[in-house]
Amino acid sequence: MGGDHAPAAAVEGAAIARERYPNVSFLLFGNQAALTSLLAAYPKLAAISEIRHTDEVVSADDKPSQALRRGRGSSMGLAIAAVQEGEADVAVSAGNTGAMMAMAKFMLKTMPGIDRPALATILPSSRGECVMLDLGANVECDARNLVEFAVMGAAFARTVLGIPRPRVALLNVGVEELKGHEEVKEAGQRLKAVDLSFDFVGFIEGDGIAAGSVDVVVTDGFTGNVALKTAEGTARMVTRLFASAFRSSLRSKLGALMAKRGLKALKDHLDPNNHNGAVFLGLNGLVVKSHGGANALGFASALGVAHDMSADNLLSRIAADLENSGDGDGTAEEAAVS
Amino acid sequence: MGGDHAPAAAVEGAAIARERYPNVSFLLFGNQAALTSLLAAYPKLAAISEIRHTDEVVSADDKPSQALRRGRGSSMGLAIAAVQEGEADVAVSAGNTGAMMAMAKFMLKTMPGIDRPALATILPSSRGECVMLDLGANVECDARNLVEFAVMGAAFARTVLGIPRPRVALLNVGVEELKGHEEVKEAGQRLKAVDLSFDFVGFIEGDGIAAGSVDVVVTDGFTGNVALKTAEGTARMVTRLFASAFRSSLRSKLGALMAKRGLKALKDHLDPNNHNGAVFLGLNGLVVKSHGGANALGFASALGVAHDMSADNLLSRIAADLENSGDGDGTAEEAAVS
Repeated sequence: MGGDHAPAAAVEGAAIARERYPNVSFLLFGNQAALTSLLAAYPKLAAISEIRHTDEVVSADDKPSQALRRGRGSSMGLAIAAVQEGEADVAVSAGNTGAMMAMAKFMLKTMPGIDRPALATILPSSRGECVMLDLGANVECDARNLVEFAVMGAAFARTVLGIPRPRVALLNVGVEELKGHEEVKEAGQRLKAVDLSFDFVGFIEGDGIAAGSVDVVVTDGFTGNVALKTAEGTARMVTRLFASAFRSSLRSKLGALMAKRGLKALKDHLDPNNHNGAVFLGLNGLVVKSHGGANALGFASALGVAHDMSADNLLSRIAADLENSGDGDGTAEEAAVS
Repeated sequence: MGGDHAPAAAVEGAAIARERYPNVSFLLFGNQAALTSLLAAYPKLAAISEIRHTDEVVSADDKPSQALRRGRGSSMGLAIAAVQEGEADVAVSAGNTGAMMAMAKFMLKTMPGIDRPALATILPSSRGECVMLDLGANVECDARNLVEFAVMGAAFARTVLGIPRPRVALLNVGVEELKGHEEVKEAGQRLKAVDLSFDFVGFIEGDGIAAGSVDVVVTDGFTGNVALKTAEGTARMVTRLFASAFRSSLRSKLGALMAKRGLKALKDHLDPNNHNGAVFLGLNGLVVKSHGGANALGFASALGVAHDMSADNLLSRIAADLENSGDGDGTAEEAAVS
């Protein structure tokens, strides 16, 4: 029931996902009448879906603390509870991010060996796509957190982007080892010292994100949130400037048509609906946050991320990688660099 | 002698600036033979220029510590020394940023009442231009530093962008008062509590930079550096995607010509040469860093920034604003929020 186009985008998105992933089935939490009426248009989806009625909804303005107190019976709260109780493999919602993070953390708890969960997403780059985390779950992070984010982000890239041995970097203000915060420098030393199931390539600067220099960009939640929104804002500005520059120079109908095609190709690559699905990594359960403005195709992308994480056993992969990297108990990696 | 197109871009840039600012004169530091030969093409510039020979150059790879030990006699070191000794009003270089920052700080020292200098620049936005600082001079900043950056950034925007009462915001992960680092929240409280010669509008998120929501964006040097480079990288990516999308859809010569015009209009707005000149604010003297890749027009932009700061007595303005904001001695603003 969350997001700008709820619940239609969720139901139509599920109908698209059903065609792509024949093994899935759905629990739909929300207003029974509204969901039943939407499902009527998709009999095949209706056959694999079960509606669980609730009138309660977490609103976009609810604070995380309010959601924790009052949101357990909401559509979002019930979906997360279904994961907690093993009824569902993964919960997907387009609702309030802060509320979802707070409820998921409270109900699912962090995985053994993980200090803090992180919010990760897939971004378009010049070479395709890359993963970035943390995007705002933790405004302050120490070296241990960054190391764990690297392990979780690499497992996510393998699972969702299908990259067997992802290239992982720490976001920094320079590529030299001496630059940056203490936390970033220490995390870099730790990641170099242990044997990992991914390639740690050191530091990258902000322009490396769009350049697609690496598959996974690791940073604290403050910097990651600012970088993500700066990239979105810049892409929007440049696209608009382009469109208006073309409109003013294109007089003919032919020209206008061509401009439209070029804009469409660009927008398809940058469209958040094609890269939808932020994920809370590091919890004992899978939770995917769809963009609030996502349409049905966008919601289907988020469901695709959910499907891939679940089908590939992301949580087991993260647990195994933590074990291998010696970061599980927070001591082995300290020994390695002392 | 610094930058990719030295020393030709500097001399040709000075020739352009001479036409724009009839009152300026130049001290040119570097290889006498090379500079003399370049000046031969610009007799009017030669008439207002004096060459000071040196064979020493700070290289792009020199560490700041090396520049401090060995760079005093270099073209960059001598230019900063000319400001220190009152021979020049402002020093401009396209050379090594770290070296320039270290030498400028060492030779000119920070202004009374300023804890740390900051690196500021002008960025294109949807509404025109905005100022952002710090861009990497300080990877860690406390609330006092951020307050001082706000005062200095506002004075810079008044002087160089000509905005009488700039709108200033702190970069954060949300616009609510409860969000973000402690340092950012405390700086926000301090800026609200004092009477300023600019409008402090609170927090903005990363997408507010390109949207042109404010005239001055204040942040720590780590976040600012990442945000600046992320924006540059994203603008480059989107421009390239656009160009290739259009090329593939435009078959006719007419179409190609129109695409070229559109691209040119966009590039003019985003071209770093039109927004060139990062400035070290908070020192007892004015120092401008031109982009290393700047061409003659770009160097002329940096000289324009230098001219405006000097003509408008930026340093006196900052000193007066510090006095008024009660931040000069680091005590008044603490009383105001206690």
